[in-house]
Amino acid sequence: MREEFGPDEGLDPRQLEALKERVEGSPFHSWSGMHLTEVGHGEARVEMELEDHHLNPQKIAHGGIIAAIADTAIGLALRSVLPSGHTHRTAQLNVHFLSKGDGTHLIGAGKAYHRGRRMGYGEAEVSDETGVLLARASATFIVLPAPGAF
Amino acid sequence: MREEFGPDEGLDPRQLEALKERVEGSPFHSWSGMHLTEVGHGEARVEMELEDHHLNPQKIAHGGIIAAIADTAIGLALRSVLPSGHTHRTAQLNVHFLSKGDGTHLIGAGKAYHRGRRMGYGEAEVSDETGVLLARASATFIVLPAPGAF
Amino acid sequence: MREEFGPDEGLDPRQLEALKERVEGSPFHSWSGMHLTEVGHGEARVEMELEDHHLNPQKIAHGGIIAAIADTAIGLALRSVLPSGHTHRTAQLNVHFLSKGDGTHLIGAGKAYHRGRRMGYGEAEVSDETGVLLARASATFIVLPAPGAF
Amino acid sequence: MREEFGPDEGLDPRQLEALKERVEGSPFHSWSGMHLTEVGHGEARVEMELEDHHLNPQKIAHGGIIAAIADTAIGLALRSVLPSGHTHRTAQLNVHFLSKGDGTHLIGAGKAYHRGRRMGYGEAEVSDETGVLLARASATFIVLPAPGAF
Repeated sequence: MREEFGPDEGLDPRQLEALKERVEGSPFHSWSGMHLTEVGHGEARVEMELEDHHLNPQKIAHGGIIAAIADTAIGLALRSVLPSGHTHRTAQLNVHFLSKGDGTHLIGAGKAYHRGRRMGYGEAEVSDETGVLLARASATFIVLPAPGAF
Repeated sequence: MREEFGPDEGLDPRQLEALKERVEGSPFHSWSGMHLTEVGHGEARVEMELEDHHLNPQKIAHGGIIAAIADTAIGLALRSVLPSGHTHRTAQLNVHFLSKGDGTHLIGAGKAYHRGRRMGYGEAEVSDETGVLLARASATFIVLPAPGAF
Repeated sequence: MREEFGPDEGLDPRQLEALKERVEGSPFHSWSGMHLTEVGHGEARVEMELEDHHLNPQKIAHGGIIAAIADTAIGLALRSVLPSGHTHRTAQLNVHFLSKGDGTHLIGAGKAYHRGRRMGYGEAEVSDETGVLLARASATFIVLPAPGAF
Repeated sequence: MREEFGPDEGLDPRQLEALKERVEGSPFHSWSGMHLTEVGHGEARVEMELEDHHLNPQKIAHGGIIAAIADTAIGLALRSVLPSGHTHRTAQLNVHFLSKGDGTHLIGAGKAYHRGRRMGYGEAEVSDETGVLLARASATFIVLPAPGAF
């Protein structure tokens, strides 16, 4: 029962491509090793390879890494259906950690559920490459006019 | 109205020192640049210098970094009052992002509020070095027997 | 990617019937007007007719009512897959209010996602009878031994 | 480190009095038994007597009642510092249930922490009349222009 976002809503293919490049070039995403592999129509997929420095002393992905991939995936899913001239800012992020998994990759799959004129809402599922569900997350966003932003 | 944790509860001074060393030696905390500067009696303080790779394209600390410092500060605050032979695991983390700040350091101040036999709860405030409040966070932890853990 | 709860897990048909009766006879649920219309295998459906006293001054269902139906639906979904001799207690509930709807009934559809030995997790969707999504909620539960409980 | 709300900000004494009367006359608050006993300068206090119909089968206040008093207390705390011509709507509410208490009254003490042009944030503590902390809650609000609203 998510809102439906049609193929003509939000960013066009050229803008989606530019969004991927922007994420790829972002210092935080390069450093943390996150890649935006799919985005559009209210959905986004972010993937990363787990390295030793992403792990806590129990050898499981640190909660902050799970939160970061969830925040990124939900935010970009929403971003893909915002009209031109608007941007988003995370107001609140809630993450439930369900399993530690034992894979070597993280996959964050984000979906926008609601796109209002002032507020947006979405959710993400974080899993490893074997399909184990590591976390479920939800986030509230402020939607802001940003003249010139696509 | 937090629970009060007396000076004789939880970890002793030698164990608190070992906890600081363990955090200092943790791959995640070294990589992300977080330092545990104070811990004990249900409180913990984690600090980090902001570097370019912690920032999102708007030049503000990425939500994942804020979440990581909050999770670390609350978890260690709780850890300091767990009895010997127990450990904790984050079950849920909620972060509210309030301001972007303009400082160069993040300070996460965590406090344990409740330490049950099965569940713990705490909160953190994340601010910059000029005193601007960037975020407020709360977290639920599972408390687990861990024979041999201090 | 929820955990799968097979037809032989959790409460048996007689226990599910007893659970419905217990909710029907609960003072809170009678007073608030909530009915458990379906439960079993990790899912539960709670319905209620909106009356004037459920509304806030803007004539929309008060957030507390939405939270109550969500908490009830998620808790009973989880309860249906707990083994005999255990019970659950809500540790944390997060609700996102998405739309005010304009129906006359609320439907809370809860699903258990994770059933651990110490912790359970589930989600609910609250909608009106026309299918408008009013809220999405998630909750963390402590799982407790309760000798004699079915 | 909450924002400070000076004595001249937000609603004036006459408007605060009108706000109390409006809550007293609201169908939801009359029905649920909640009274706004103090409000102003970013704080609000809501009190209620616990009756049998507020309790779950374990004889403790139902999570929905705790959520309702928290939502009300935080929302009115924020409302008291909104400028004329604006209103608020709860976007998200997170509640941590910490103790069951054994009192006969609930007290919800709400505080506004942030009042932006688009978003507000606040927290509440719910306790019983003996001082036992039952729950901690936080909420995100959309701030909306509402011409004619005080």
